[in-house]
Amino acid sequence: MTKEALLLTIAVLGGTGKEGKGLAYRWAKAGYRVLIGSRSSEKAVKAASEIMELLEGSSSVVGTTNPEAAEQADIIVLTVPYSAHRETLESVKSALKGKILVDVTAPLVPPKLSKVQMPPAGSAAQEAKEILGEEVQVVTAFQNVSHEYLMGEEDVECDVLVTGTSKKARVEVLMLVEATGLTGWDAGPIENSVVVEGLASVLININRLYGSKHAGIRITGVPNQAIEST
Amino acid sequence: MTKEALLLTIAVLGGTGKEGKGLAYRWAKAGYRVLIGSRSSEKAVKAASEIMELLEGSSSVVGTTNPEAAEQADIIVLTVPYSAHRETLESVKSALKGKILVDVTAPLVPPKLSKVQMPPAGSAAQEAKEILGEEVQVVTAFQNVSHEYLMGEEDVECDVLVTGTSKKARVEVLMLVEATGLTGWDAGPIENSVVVEGLASVLININRLYGSKHAGIRITGVPNQAIEST
Repeated sequence: MTKEALLLTIAVLGGTGKEGKGLAYRWAKAGYRVLIGSRSSEKAVKAASEIMELLEGSSSVVGTTNPEAAEQADIIVLTVPYSAHRETLESVKSALKGKILVDVTAPLVPPKLSKVQMPPAGSAAQEAKEILGEEVQVVTAFQNVSHEYLMGEEDVECDVLVTGTSKKARVEVLMLVEATGLTGWDAGPIENSVVVEGLASVLININRLYGSKHAGIRITGVPNQAIEST
Repeated sequence: MTKEALLLTIAVLGGTGKEGKGLAYRWAKAGYRVLIGSRSSEKAVKAASEIMELLEGSSSVVGTTNPEAAEQADIIVLTVPYSAHRETLESVKSALKGKILVDVTAPLVPPKLSKVQMPPAGSAAQEAKEILGEEVQVVTAFQNVSHEYLMGEEDVECDVLVTGTSKKARVEVLMLVEATGLTGWDAGPIENSVVVEGLASVLININRLYGSKHAGIRITGVPNQAIEST
């Protein structure tokens, strides 16, 4: 457990879904206090106890509603499908002031999931920024990591590209990425989110054409993965 | 030399630049007939003889003007800087009818090269499609491969994502990627070009922050890289 983990509470909104549950599991395992948020607090409580069981009680995971989870947390992670993106953000907006929102949404539009189709704001993350205003730091991460990897114990063969509204917020989220056991990279300003979110469609296309299930990406050619945190 | 190589002539417009020369070198080495195009035919002839010298005369590389090269080739590869993108395309438009244009352009806008800034069409490739009309297949590739890799002999640690206006055209270009010794992936329709072109800015950001020079990407988690060509 890191010193930082002791200080931070992470809310995972939509944490009853596969991706959210996988992330919550990884952070709880790393020693963070985790709140699972859902529209139904009953489902959230159930998901939280499932994770606690997997970790044999050595962790702190609590289930509650999305607004309650956002209220109590320092960092809020959004893992709902794109169709619930705006509605969920509006329901927790007042609780996010002065905090970091980690947006895991890839704005996939059925039926053409393998075609990049961004909202008018440019990306889901930029849309979140428009909804939330200047008082919230918006960062993107984890769109392209398969939930099966997160719940497993094996090495995750997918790097995490992190974009966001400030370098400070990106560096904080890079520490959360590290806590999950994955490799994160500062991929630049929020305007670059289209690349990270759009990669989801590219990887879906590759899975479909090449008969794979968990296509991911790795950054190559960088000898030293350390980044200055100041 | 493949059977296919004997049949195809590739024009590399802007082939006197580093990226274009690197690609021309790789294709000439693989046995393709290559035309180097430039605004100045004198510079093109010089670049062509430099490549011939490197390959010790065992190849066919000819330098000429951009329109002449486009006229004589089966597949045309555009490697000019974004500032010359529109002008070059308009100068060769009539010669491209019924052919494939491989657009290598990443629309970087100084001074913020590490920030994704796409043209109104959505990407440089979609802009090319608007300029060229329905009679030309537009495909993107090679934006993120460092030219130093192309002129060297070592393994290139960067995969090539290929997007384009038709699957048939993407498959043809994937064969050209294979001929360079790199690994290519069908990354879907032309609308996905924003991801491939935008990655250039993400990789520039990573190079700047992590002190690297040749950040690239690899696709992971796909056991079988073969794609059906029909």
